[in-house]
Amino acid sequence: MYILHSFCQSGNACKVAFMLNALNVPWEAKFVDFMNGVTRTGEWREGLNEMGEVPVLDDASTAPPKRLTQSGVILTYLAEKHGQFGGATQDERLEILRWIMFDNHKFTSYFATYRFLKAFGPTAPDPIIMKWLGARLEAAFNVVNTHLAKRTYMVAERVTIADISLSGYLFFPVEESGYDLAARFQHIAAWRDRLKNVPGWKDPYVMLPGERIGAKW
Amino acid sequence: MYILHSFCQSGNACKVAFMLNALNVPWEAKFVDFMNGVTRTGEWREGLNEMGEVPVLDDASTAPPKRLTQSGVILTYLAEKHGQFGGATQDERLEILRWIMFDNHKFTSYFATYRFLKAFGPTAPDPIIMKWLGARLEAAFNVVNTHLAKRTYMVAERVTIADISLSGYLFFPVEESGYDLAARFQHIAAWRDRLKNVPGWKDPYVMLPGERIGAKW
Repeated sequence: MYILHSFCQSGNACKVAFMLNALNVPWEAKFVDFMNGVTRTGEWREGLNEMGEVPVLDDASTAPPKRLTQSGVILTYLAEKHGQFGGATQDERLEILRWIMFDNHKFTSYFATYRFLKAFGPTAPDPIIMKWLGARLEAAFNVVNTHLAKRTYMVAERVTIADISLSGYLFFPVEESGYDLAARFQHIAAWRDRLKNVPGWKDPYVMLPGERIGAKW
Repeated sequence: MYILHSFCQSGNACKVAFMLNALNVPWEAKFVDFMNGVTRTGEWREGLNEMGEVPVLDDASTAPPKRLTQSGVILTYLAEKHGQFGGATQDERLEILRWIMFDNHKFTSYFATYRFLKAFGPTAPDPIIMKWLGARLEAAFNVVNTHLAKRTYMVAERVTIADISLSGYLFFPVEESGYDLAARFQHIAAWRDRLKNVPGWKDPYVMLPGERIGAKW
């Protein structure tokens, strides 16, 4: 039914895979060789996603079939289509979108970049850049950690796509980012662990295709 | 009547101000002393926006009144409420959201940070960080420049909130960022200039409160 163009190191792809599993709908992963530059080729940009990014989701169940990109768009689309994990009211929908925006702007954005440079970059990362990125990701993590101090989930008393979006990069091994959440951001760590209990949750390296390569730096 | 908590150097606040002007609805700006750290205080985080950010929009016309943050959320809300500048179909709405996500993740994100460090940071920016950010913002700008090569506006044959979002930081003086769009990204520059013809458009330093301080570095 759904085809998810993805690879196992992509937390943004993991967000969508987690959602599809939680919805318990049939889907298949199609491996994208991101690490060897496939998403930056003209072929990829013209054929699949001009933004040069993963994930891409194909939904063949609609006429015409839909091809969607941006994890936040895909999560919103799937929540509306299947009537699960979205907002029940306008206020909830706006609040969910607010956290997905914050996730894309600062939370996933800085953390995913930090982790990529630390674990998978072509050369060892520059400590000046890592220090700068680290300060920014910690500011974003402090916002979410404070928000979660008195809450079970980000927006409602149930899991929503805001949780699925924000948690996308938090299920990878500590050595990839060097950030031990339990030691530094305890409310985020506890919430991340609660999300593992959502039926359908799986480890990223089990859920999506590609070779686990470990942290290079 | 809307109240927009804002200051003139914030392109994210400009996005909302441009939208309110384009909608031709009554609004007032309330100055936020961001440059002196107001949005990072506990008072701001507890009272106005836990994310520590501008813009914040108050809509007193609803019961109860709404307080919204994140420019992408505010633009989406206003487009739905007033029935203008949004998507006419589901596909258009998804495509608009896709570009607003890209804007938050990479386009505004890297450019606004680069400009802030270059023009307004507390000390002269580190050239290593500027080089790294510059490469990332140029990659994002290339995506939008290519997209606009054969289009008048980002998503439809009319202005939508995708245009208003992506253009938010492009109306500031060249010296603040050092990026001359006309020389480097001609399709973006032409589109930006077309947007100045939208009724209601104004220069950021006319539209929003605060002192114009020029580029410090």
